[in-house]
Amino acid sequence: MTNILFAAGPDLWAEYEAPLRTALDATGLDYQLAYEADPESVDYVVYAPGSWLQDFTPYTRLKAVLNLWAGVEKITGNPTLTVPLARMVDEEGLTQGMVEYVTGHVLRHHLGMDAYIANPEQAWRPVVPPLAGERPVGILGLGTLGLACAEALSALGFPVTGWSRSPKTVAGITTLHGSDGLSEALENAEILVLLLPDTPATRDLLDTERLAQLPRGAVIVNPGRGPLIVDDALIAALDSGQIAHATLDVFRTEPLPAEHPFWAHPKVTVTPHIASETRVPSASRVIAENIRRGEAGEPLLHLVDRAAGY
Amino acid sequence: MTNILFAAGPDLWAEYEAPLRTALDATGLDYQLAYEADPESVDYVVYAPGSWLQDFTPYTRLKAVLNLWAGVEKITGNPTLTVPLARMVDEEGLTQGMVEYVTGHVLRHHLGMDAYIANPEQAWRPVVPPLAGERPVGILGLGTLGLACAEALSALGFPVTGWSRSPKTVAGITTLHGSDGLSEALENAEILVLLLPDTPATRDLLDTERLAQLPRGAVIVNPGRGPLIVDDALIAALDSGQIAHATLDVFRTEPLPAEHPFWAHPKVTVTPHIASETRVPSASRVIAENIRRGEAGEPLLHLVDRAAGY
Repeated sequence: MTNILFAAGPDLWAEYEAPLRTALDATGLDYQLAYEADPESVDYVVYAPGSWLQDFTPYTRLKAVLNLWAGVEKITGNPTLTVPLARMVDEEGLTQGMVEYVTGHVLRHHLGMDAYIANPEQAWRPVVPPLAGERPVGILGLGTLGLACAEALSALGFPVTGWSRSPKTVAGITTLHGSDGLSEALENAEILVLLLPDTPATRDLLDTERLAQLPRGAVIVNPGRGPLIVDDALIAALDSGQIAHATLDVFRTEPLPAEHPFWAHPKVTVTPHIASETRVPSASRVIAENIRRGEAGEPLLHLVDRAAGY
Repeated sequence: MTNILFAAGPDLWAEYEAPLRTALDATGLDYQLAYEADPESVDYVVYAPGSWLQDFTPYTRLKAVLNLWAGVEKITGNPTLTVPLARMVDEEGLTQGMVEYVTGHVLRHHLGMDAYIANPEQAWRPVVPPLAGERPVGILGLGTLGLACAEALSALGFPVTGWSRSPKTVAGITTLHGSDGLSEALENAEILVLLLPDTPATRDLLDTERLAQLPRGAVIVNPGRGPLIVDDALIAALDSGQIAHATLDVFRTEPLPAEHPFWAHPKVTVTPHIASETRVPSASRVIAENIRRGEAGEPLLHLVDRAAGY
């Protein structure tokens, strides 16, 4: 019998209990999952920052602590914790969520949905959009997220061009790299998706000059990082009609301050950093997989180097 | 040399010339495509209802007439037309367009986009939706369109249940049929897509009783046929909260009359019968394929039975 203690608040217990049981059932383990337990009986602790559990000393049988979030700064310094600590890396949830967000918003702009969602004149005005095959999409960044989105959009029929700093080859997708490649990627993208990391090389990448390389009337979807775009340059490009619309999920300051001009701009859609999040069902599967690994004597996933602090 | 006359108006010529040349080039035929031609030189006529060309007598070399639309009622009675007549059946454009519309609107409702597209309070209110895997979608109708949509949604991770009158088996999709199967399909569908034909058996299918079988807060997307839904029953279900939203592309009367309550209802999105249309590029490929077939001595696609009138 493997004893698992859920050492986080009642709201999280309500959210996680059923998905955790589903995920644990799928491992085939003989387990007990509880919200309260005799410390000496506990094999694994599922943990959230700020938990009531701060003194691990009585947990004499404990094999590992499995954090529900990526952030572990509130526990790495705990001197009573002497067993392995794993952070949450929910690749399935993060990637799948991003694919859904990007595919959904690309289709929204491709199909011109907004004109029907808000149609104050109640006008019957049929405009048949081109098929996806006639709508070139550009994706900047071909990491895990960019690649998954490129493949999903390509499967729906969009001609996809992906750009990355270093050369990559991906079946079914036109790939470009470097500075010249970026110009070519921008020139062809009627819908541009930003999935680059925030680095000194990518900061302020979409400035006035780069925005001018897009075809007139292009749409930008940014679920990547806020600093990729120069905000003032984007607003000027929206006002001039160079960019038709921007759907932005990430910002230089979050939450986006009430006075920021993006909020009131009719050509900007603000989504509140929801494109990609750890999700309860897939996070539960990561926890269950780590318990399965622990019981099988296999190395745990996503172990924290407590000396380094992450 | 195959001589092709485009016998339709100047607007259509402007729209079709380039895509037709692209499609004809791909066949490898040695051809000439023109908007005007000596009748005695013409091998194929590309035709639109209402064309200036009504007397086919001088077209002594003509092999076939290829209609740009599905409707042929304005030409089948023409006594001077004695060569085969093909109608337009743009399966590629119709199916692909429907997949894009259905996938786009299902993702829109799944992601809760509308709350961000119109966000008058400018509120930063992050609500992370479940992943597609937690969002069961039902599709009523498993013909060409329903099947293609079911497969696209399934590929994105949605658990899809398809319902048809007669039993069908489709890999990766739960299939149900008959009256009991319909109840089961409705009970599980958080998003319901209607892709049934309009027949005496499907008319008024979504009535008060059937709408009540959906889970509370379900969303309906209807790009199928207007009479599938009892309008008053839908409005009552929207008002009671049983149905959270309806996105409708087809109506009992089209254009939807200005006084119809769907227009002003805050939980209804009206799209003006745009989900699936013949598209110029794919229709051009159908025309080119038929000319290729004619020149190769193969039977033409979509030939009209002129005695039957369709």
